[in-house]
Amino acid sequence: MTHTDLNGQLDTARADAELFDLLRIPSVSADPARKADMVRAAEFLHAKLTGLGFDARVDATPGHPIVFAQRQGPAGAPTVLVYGHYDVQPEAPVEEWHTPPFEPTVRGGRVYARGATDDKGQAYAHVMGADLLLQGGDLPVTLKFLLEGEEEVGSVNLGAYLTAHRDALACDVIVISDGSRFAKDVPSLTYALRGISYVEIHVQGASRDLHSGSYGGAAPNPINALAHIIAKLKDETGRILIPGFYDDVEPLSDEEREMWAKLPHSDEAFAGSINARALPGEPGFTTLERLWARPTLDVNGIWGGYQGEGSKTVIPARAGAKVSMRLVPGQDSHRITNLIGEYVASIAPEGVTAEVRDLHGGEPVKVDLDSPFVQAASTAIESVYGKAPAFTRTGGSIPIVATFREVLGAPVLLVDLGLDEDALHSPNESFALDDYHNGIRVSAALLQEIGKLGR
Amino acid sequence: MTHTDLNGQLDTARADAELFDLLRIPSVSADPARKADMVRAAEFLHAKLTGLGFDARVDATPGHPIVFAQRQGPAGAPTVLVYGHYDVQPEAPVEEWHTPPFEPTVRGGRVYARGATDDKGQAYAHVMGADLLLQGGDLPVTLKFLLEGEEEVGSVNLGAYLTAHRDALACDVIVISDGSRFAKDVPSLTYALRGISYVEIHVQGASRDLHSGSYGGAAPNPINALAHIIAKLKDETGRILIPGFYDDVEPLSDEEREMWAKLPHSDEAFAGSINARALPGEPGFTTLERLWARPTLDVNGIWGGYQGEGSKTVIPARAGAKVSMRLVPGQDSHRITNLIGEYVASIAPEGVTAEVRDLHGGEPVKVDLDSPFVQAASTAIESVYGKAPAFTRTGGSIPIVATFREVLGAPVLLVDLGLDEDALHSPNESFALDDYHNGIRVSAALLQEIGKLGR
Repeated sequence: MTHTDLNGQLDTARADAELFDLLRIPSVSADPARKADMVRAAEFLHAKLTGLGFDARVDATPGHPIVFAQRQGPAGAPTVLVYGHYDVQPEAPVEEWHTPPFEPTVRGGRVYARGATDDKGQAYAHVMGADLLLQGGDLPVTLKFLLEGEEEVGSVNLGAYLTAHRDALACDVIVISDGSRFAKDVPSLTYALRGISYVEIHVQGASRDLHSGSYGGAAPNPINALAHIIAKLKDETGRILIPGFYDDVEPLSDEEREMWAKLPHSDEAFAGSINARALPGEPGFTTLERLWARPTLDVNGIWGGYQGEGSKTVIPARAGAKVSMRLVPGQDSHRITNLIGEYVASIAPEGVTAEVRDLHGGEPVKVDLDSPFVQAASTAIESVYGKAPAFTRTGGSIPIVATFREVLGAPVLLVDLGLDEDALHSPNESFALDDYHNGIRVSAALLQEIGKLGR
Repeated sequence: MTHTDLNGQLDTARADAELFDLLRIPSVSADPARKADMVRAAEFLHAKLTGLGFDARVDATPGHPIVFAQRQGPAGAPTVLVYGHYDVQPEAPVEEWHTPPFEPTVRGGRVYARGATDDKGQAYAHVMGADLLLQGGDLPVTLKFLLEGEEEVGSVNLGAYLTAHRDALACDVIVISDGSRFAKDVPSLTYALRGISYVEIHVQGASRDLHSGSYGGAAPNPINALAHIIAKLKDETGRILIPGFYDDVEPLSDEEREMWAKLPHSDEAFAGSINARALPGEPGFTTLERLWARPTLDVNGIWGGYQGEGSKTVIPARAGAKVSMRLVPGQDSHRITNLIGEYVASIAPEGVTAEVRDLHGGEPVKVDLDSPFVQAASTAIESVYGKAPAFTRTGGSIPIVATFREVLGAPVLLVDLGLDEDALHSPNESFALDDYHNGIRVSAALLQEIGKLGR
């Protein structure tokens, strides 16, 4: 079957309808109140894959369930493991959504819904890729799906699952679509991901809230203290001040800097796409270098004292913040988490205690560009998009990728199908339907190309 | 009627029952959802004062209503205006209350409820003081009550009310009980209050929330920016860094420093009372000097990004904080609000905009110690507590006091009946019942002493 056949056979109306049903399930892994919805999403995928003739099952974990499915291919055919996640980010702030986050709505060729691109849309493109091939006959490879429900909360149980099911998961290559292409007209293959260290900082002052009139000037203020701590984590130029933070950072090669300098990128357009007045960041690096190959630190949330209407003259007892650091090849998330823990405790202002709690971490990774699977992916992408992919990195993290390589010992292909403009993790997340449909075609073509490789 | 008679005649059971009924009304002026409760509280006071033979009324304002009542005294008797407020602070964080904030509960001789001491308990002590005198005959003075419902939100409508009703409010002396005595066994008369400038800082980065993986390292982060701004408002020693902030501060006199050095105060006990590890503050001043005679700055609330369970890797579009500055004699709240506005805009980090919004302000004030009314108050307090009052300042603010002096041209007596340990503005606010009962006796004795002064 040629790629042309694939294009002709794709029933986009059915492909859309099935994805929209999945998007209607509010599978927010961070929200304990959504536990039943997580199960519903897992069972939805289990039913679909069973219907395609896969040997599928839903495996319980201490957290949210994992969907595993496999379908035997021809004797001697390679084995492909597709990884994706059916859990999504919280929808907050819900008031900023133009249409309800869990009622998929099509506007201007895009479907708007939480999880549309991250990762339900990209993961389901592979399910429909198998569906597409099976209409024309059998699969050219042995295909396995591993779809988890905890990626947005650090894949806390997947590592143990991989180890426990090492044999069932054995494969020649792992395919992951959970990121963004470089640009609408630039298909890309991603060869490196940043890792992450995600912590909470908790600052305690007095044991109770105090009147700022009766105590202001003498009582410790945990919010002011937290602000001093955060200001000492990263300076205003974007340089991180945690001692030892940069020690193990693998430097950028001249080849990479030259390759990226050739990519079509405009700081003005990038800033304009998010209505930012400037793109502040670490001196001495371009925007792409800072996003792809340099570590950074961002406060993701902060709270303390009175947040309601009007004014309350209170000195609160405590304040806190969520802080995440993106890590690059060479860095180790456990070491970084320890470094920030020791540093924060050492800079806590007089009168307060500051404690760092580890929420989750993931290791950075670089993918081997020499594998024949990379060539197969490049061919498949070119057959659908009409041009060869650019080789890029991404600023995001898929912590489990490092674990995949470690436990299963197979190369990982990062075939990104989405775009940053899809607003993943933001209100009004969306996925362009043509990107979804091309993703289905790329998935089918990739399995065909890998099938040709034999073992 | 002698003070002994007063003590004998006080029906404490009835006095408590009436106060508890008032405490059951959740009159939180900052909460738009409590508007009807504000009216209920005003009508409760109107009914009580009418029952005591006062000519009482509830006057509407653009915000919450004002209760005004007056009862004519003997010809040639002085006129006393008692000011208080029936609105209370928000009860948040409600989960830290041991008993519900609007169900008054007596434990260990204290009544626990929001507003118990600030200011329902202290204001109602004067209502019951009049009640007590009227049992024994008539009032020795012409007595007026002015009870507002917006003190906790800056008394935004009281200034205009005072001006509009200048004639009806005409008086020889103003009595206010809305603060804390120096200590349980140290009755005090307060001769100075700090003013306040209360603002909100709003920081805007990109126009939407962003994925910290896709944008971390290039996109402006309004929370990190806000932390840098706050860290530049006050250094870690407590010294405020806003240019010009200290220009007009009236220095402490040697007499004041010596008078306060003699007061029974222990930093250890003070820190221990709030379980604070230290009492950080401006170098070169004692704790009492910092609390009473030095300006300060506290962040009262902060928010931004994800505050829910688990982790969300988001760079939020905006963040904000509530910041209040306590001001001392010499400073002007309008000038200070302008200074922080200009300063914050000037230090906003690259890529964000920072805006300061004025929530409310109030002027600092010092009371004239030479007035004969001060002697009358001193005598009344000594007759009840058995010792003469100490002359102290307070760190709190009653912004309207400056307006009273300005519009009505009468001296103000600050007869504090509560204690800092009452935890005003905090969870588990309370008022010692013996302080409430002594407050009733002090109020009655004070009216008798002022009656003796004639005009």
